[in-house]
Amino acid sequence: MTAFAVTELSDVAAIDWIAVDWGTSNLRVSAIGSNGPLATRSSDKGMSCLTRDQFEPALMSLIEDWLPLTRVMPVLACGMVGSRQGWVEAKYRAVPCVPMDQNGLIRVKTHSERIDVYITPGLSQTKPADVMRGEETQIAGALSLYPNFDGVICLPGTHSKWAHISAGEVVSFQTFMTGELYALLSGQSVLRHGLTDAGWDDAAFDSGVDDALSRPEKIAARLFTLRAEALLQNLPSASARARLSGLLIGIELAAAKPYWLGQSVMLIGADSLSDAYEKSLIKQGLNPKKLPSQACIIAGLASVRTPK
Amino acid sequence: MTAFAVTELSDVAAIDWIAVDWGTSNLRVSAIGSNGPLATRSSDKGMSCLTRDQFEPALMSLIEDWLPLTRVMPVLACGMVGSRQGWVEAKYRAVPCVPMDQNGLIRVKTHSERIDVYITPGLSQTKPADVMRGEETQIAGALSLYPNFDGVICLPGTHSKWAHISAGEVVSFQTFMTGELYALLSGQSVLRHGLTDAGWDDAAFDSGVDDALSRPEKIAARLFTLRAEALLQNLPSASARARLSGLLIGIELAAAKPYWLGQSVMLIGADSLSDAYEKSLIKQGLNPKKLPSQACIIAGLASVRTPK
Repeated sequence: MTAFAVTELSDVAAIDWIAVDWGTSNLRVSAIGSNGPLATRSSDKGMSCLTRDQFEPALMSLIEDWLPLTRVMPVLACGMVGSRQGWVEAKYRAVPCVPMDQNGLIRVKTHSERIDVYITPGLSQTKPADVMRGEETQIAGALSLYPNFDGVICLPGTHSKWAHISAGEVVSFQTFMTGELYALLSGQSVLRHGLTDAGWDDAAFDSGVDDALSRPEKIAARLFTLRAEALLQNLPSASARARLSGLLIGIELAAAKPYWLGQSVMLIGADSLSDAYEKSLIKQGLNPKKLPSQACIIAGLASVRTPK
Repeated sequence: MTAFAVTELSDVAAIDWIAVDWGTSNLRVSAIGSNGPLATRSSDKGMSCLTRDQFEPALMSLIEDWLPLTRVMPVLACGMVGSRQGWVEAKYRAVPCVPMDQNGLIRVKTHSERIDVYITPGLSQTKPADVMRGEETQIAGALSLYPNFDGVICLPGTHSKWAHISAGEVVSFQTFMTGELYALLSGQSVLRHGLTDAGWDDAAFDSGVDDALSRPEKIAARLFTLRAEALLQNLPSASARARLSGLLIGIELAAAKPYWLGQSVMLIGADSLSDAYEKSLIKQGLNPKKLPSQACIIAGLASVRTPK
C-alpha cells in the first residue's frame, strides 16, 4: 500500500464527507471539507484484487483516522467498485439520461457504523452496446463546473470514452480500447523488441495520427512496419513508441469522427495523454477544453452529495 | 520434447537429406527420400528458447538415429533459425527476387561431421519496410508445384503475409499482425472475460469480416462492443470469438485489398485458418487455391537442394 497525505489533518472535524475513486487497479480516497479536498490517499487495492468482504477493510485502512467519533461519515464512491465483481453491484442506468442521479445511488450495508457508503451506478447503451463506470462521474463533474456545456466529452484512457452531451444529458457514447491495445502491443507483442528504450518523438506521433486518420483502412498494415523498420533501418525506440501511440489514437479519432466533427470538445484525463489528444484535435481544427480527471471525479461526487 | 514418427525407419539408407522447419516456438524435421518425406518429428526447441550453442544439440537429438555412418547427411533449414538471435544469421535478400536462391544458402559450421547444414535467408523489402523468414520457403515450394503461377500468395498466421508474385519472383509483400492481435485480445485483454467457453459461430465470423471490410475506419469502435454485448446482452462466447476473428481478418483484407483485388490468389497455411480466409475471399468474388504449409516447406527446401 502506498499512502500519501496532501495535507496533514490535525482536526478531522473539518471533513464533511469522503470521495472514493475505486477502479480496477487502484483505490483513491479524498477527504472533502467545505472548501474542497483536504487530503488524498491511495492504495493498490483495486476491485480486481478484492473479494466481496475485503472491500470494507481496504477502505477502512485508508480512512479510519479521518472518521470522527461523534457522527457518521458520508462516503461516496464511483468506479468498478459498483460492478458485478465489486463490493455491491450498482446496475447501469440507460442513456439518454443525466450522468448521475442522486436517487440512483446504491447504499452499501457496512459492518462499521461510522461510515455511510453510497456507490454511483455506471451508464449503459443498448445499440451499439456499451458501458461505462466511473466516467459518468467525471462527466457529471465537468457539467457541474460548466453547466451549460453542449457538445462532446472525450475521456482518454485504457478504455477511452466519447460521450455526446446535450441539455445536461449523456445522449450516446462509444468506448475505444486504445490504451489497452497500446499496452498489449508495446508490452507483449513482437513490437516490444523495438521499444526497449525510453523517450518520445513528437513528429513520429503526428505522422502516426495523420496516417491513421487519413487512411484508417490501412491500420492492419501499419503495425508490423514498426518491427521491420527496427530490424532493417534501426528505427529509434522513441520514434516507434510515438508512432504506435499515434496510429492507435489516430484510428480512435477516425472512428470517433461522427462524435467530434464540428463539435465543442472537452477532454478529461491525465495530463500527458490529454495533451496528445488535444494536439491531434487542434490539428483537426478543433479547440478542445481540458479538465483534470481528479477534479472532475470530486466535483461529480459532490454534485450528488448536495441536493441541487 | 514431443517426437512422433510418420514411418518407422528400418533403414536410414533411404534418407537423401533432412528438411528442417525451425520457427520461434517449434522445431520440425523431416527425413526426405527419393519419393518424398519418409518420417517427421518435432520438438518445442524453437529459436526463442535456445542460445547459440544449443541449436546443434537440439537438432541432433531429433535426427541422430537418421544419420548413416558412411556419408554426410545434407540438412536444409528455414525459419527463425536464420535470424539474428538464431543459430547463424542468414541476412535477408531484398525483393524483387526469386523466393529462394541456391547460391544464397548460408552454411553452418557444426561440431558434428555427420551433418552438412544450410540455412535459407529470409526476404526484406525497403519501402514499406517489411521482412519474412520461413514464408519465402513456402512461396518457393508453391512455385515449384505451380511454376507458372502469377498472382498473390497469402500465408495466414501469427504474422500473415501477402506476397505479389510475377515471373517467379516476389515483387512485393506486406505483413499483418492479425494472428498475434487475436491472441493478445482473446487471451489477455478485457475481452477474454467474454470468451471463456469454446465454440464457433459462422454467422458471427461472417458479420465481423463484412463489417470490417465495408467500414474498416470503424474498427477501433467495434472491439469493446464485444465486451459490452457480453455484459448487457449475454453475447455467447462462440459468437464473440468468431466475430473478433472476423473483425481482425476483415481489417487485414481491407488493408490488403490492393494485393488481392482482381488477382489469382493462393492460400498457404493450416487448414482451419486457411478455410476462414478462403471463405471470406470467395465472398469477395475470388477463387483461391489452397496449399498445405508443410508440403510447401518441404517442396521449397527441395527446390534449392536439387539444382534446377
